[in-house]
Amino acid sequence: MTSRTPVPSTAAALRDLAARGEWTGPTAGILDGYQQANLVVVPHDLAFDFLLYCVRNPAPCPVLAVTEPGDPVVRLGDTVADLRTDLPRYRVWRRGQLVDEPHDITAYWREDAVGFLLGCSHTFEGPLRRAGVPVRYAASSAAPAVYVTDVPTQPAGRLSGPLVVSMRAVPGPLVARAVEVTSRYPTGHGAPVHIGDPAELGITDLGRPDFGPPPVIEPGDTPVFWACGVTPQLVLPSAAADYSMTHYPGHMLVFDHSIDVPQDCVTHFISQHRGQNRR
Amino acid sequence: MTSRTPVPSTAAALRDLAARGEWTGPTAGILDGYQQANLVVVPHDLAFDFLLYCVRNPAPCPVLAVTEPGDPVVRLGDTVADLRTDLPRYRVWRRGQLVDEPHDITAYWREDAVGFLLGCSHTFEGPLRRAGVPVRYAASSAAPAVYVTDVPTQPAGRLSGPLVVSMRAVPGPLVARAVEVTSRYPTGHGAPVHIGDPAELGITDLGRPDFGPPPVIEPGDTPVFWACGVTPQLVLPSAAADYSMTHYPGHMLVFDHSIDVPQDCVTHFISQHRGQNRR
Repeated sequence: MTSRTPVPSTAAALRDLAARGEWTGPTAGILDGYQQANLVVVPHDLAFDFLLYCVRNPAPCPVLAVTEPGDPVVRLGDTVADLRTDLPRYRVWRRGQLVDEPHDITAYWREDAVGFLLGCSHTFEGPLRRAGVPVRYAASSAAPAVYVTDVPTQPAGRLSGPLVVSMRAVPGPLVARAVEVTSRYPTGHGAPVHIGDPAELGITDLGRPDFGPPPVIEPGDTPVFWACGVTPQLVLPSAAADYSMTHYPGHMLVFDHSIDVPQDCVTHFISQHRGQNRR
Repeated sequence: MTSRTPVPSTAAALRDLAARGEWTGPTAGILDGYQQANLVVVPHDLAFDFLLYCVRNPAPCPVLAVTEPGDPVVRLGDTVADLRTDLPRYRVWRRGQLVDEPHDITAYWREDAVGFLLGCSHTFEGPLRRAGVPVRYAASSAAPAVYVTDVPTQPAGRLSGPLVVSMRAVPGPLVARAVEVTSRYPTGHGAPVHIGDPAELGITDLGRPDFGPPPVIEPGDTPVFWACGVTPQLVLPSAAADYSMTHYPGHMLVFDHSIDVPQDCVTHFISQHRGQNRR
């Protein structure tokens, strides 16, 4: 089980352990420097609406990769991963109702399933720490406090819902640095969406997050809010799709590539495409 | 007709003239500083493949806006435009064959039509000139030379094809500046995809472009290649959709907003969404 399994040193090794059922715990706080991703799986007939929702809301839903209908394998950079097995844990929904939280979704996979991998803020916490910005969590947790705001996201087709944000309390003199660092990671939700008064987002009590543990806030800290990958999980039930599947919170897909080397830089366009064609 | 109609001073005025059939000419080289856009219209059943193609190929296909199925009106920033009438000229395709090049597509619009507005390199030519980088065109033209490369784009579903590039010859000492300036306009195709030897892209003769006039190249110039919005026009016939529609080359939709104020900056997320919700 997770508690007795040492943390592997590579993303590929972690995915192997997850596929064998030997790593069932969260990926938050481990494998610092690797790109981690949220998973959303929807039927093909909802895929256009969902992709459009992501394009219209790139801060909470930065698209890293999308699979072809029915194909459970995602390829991105050097990573080849099976979406049915290579995450530690999943959630399965039927017509908007949560029906299972398994460690493997092979039995639930369908011929029309389309998988979306969306960027994750776990990605920028290592760079924040290395830049001298403390990332403070409750001792028992490696997850930030997460809040549902009253800010609407841009709807798309059958999909609509509020923006969800994660909050990290940052010492006042380091707030600008936190913005600078995270703005370099658009695939990790990018720059903050708000700094300061939580009431601007309709959040009445920082001490009572909607998800995750209460935050650690020290004197002189400023609350800094980033768009959060939980946003699409709140939007999907509104579509009441036949089925949808997501990662279990904190239990992400971990890619092989480091986020310290941008993967989406258009100046690499030619070599990337030549390379992918050869593979 | 165009030749006797003075160039209007605002994008909204140009769209009005186009809708009344009083502006039928190109938009290249006019209204410097406004965001211009390529148009692609496809049936809803091809919309997921096409949006995914754009997401996988953001350099040639930067998505500015997508309409809801059947709705011909696009809203972006302050712009409200009717895709059926507000461009000066269009192309209409049936099952991959070009069937018409009208000034209005009202008669061709369908209940399942989805419109995509994609960024355009006309957008960065004004900023290039203001940065001291000459943009040299044949005297008779305000359009760059455009080439079909042998570099494959990332396929998506039924859509695949080669990357198409525009070329501008830049004096050697100004190449770095050209990269710096254009990299600030991801919605105008962003940084170059290649600098230097055209053979690297499978282009054998710069003097014979696939589209547009032969380029003006002076001694000491270096060829600089940007991803081009013609790319999706070459990809659509491969899908042999029931129908598709595009702008006529050089005859773009012009938005009300200036591209000197980035529209996609995530730090504006909250105010943008609040604003769009009120409208």
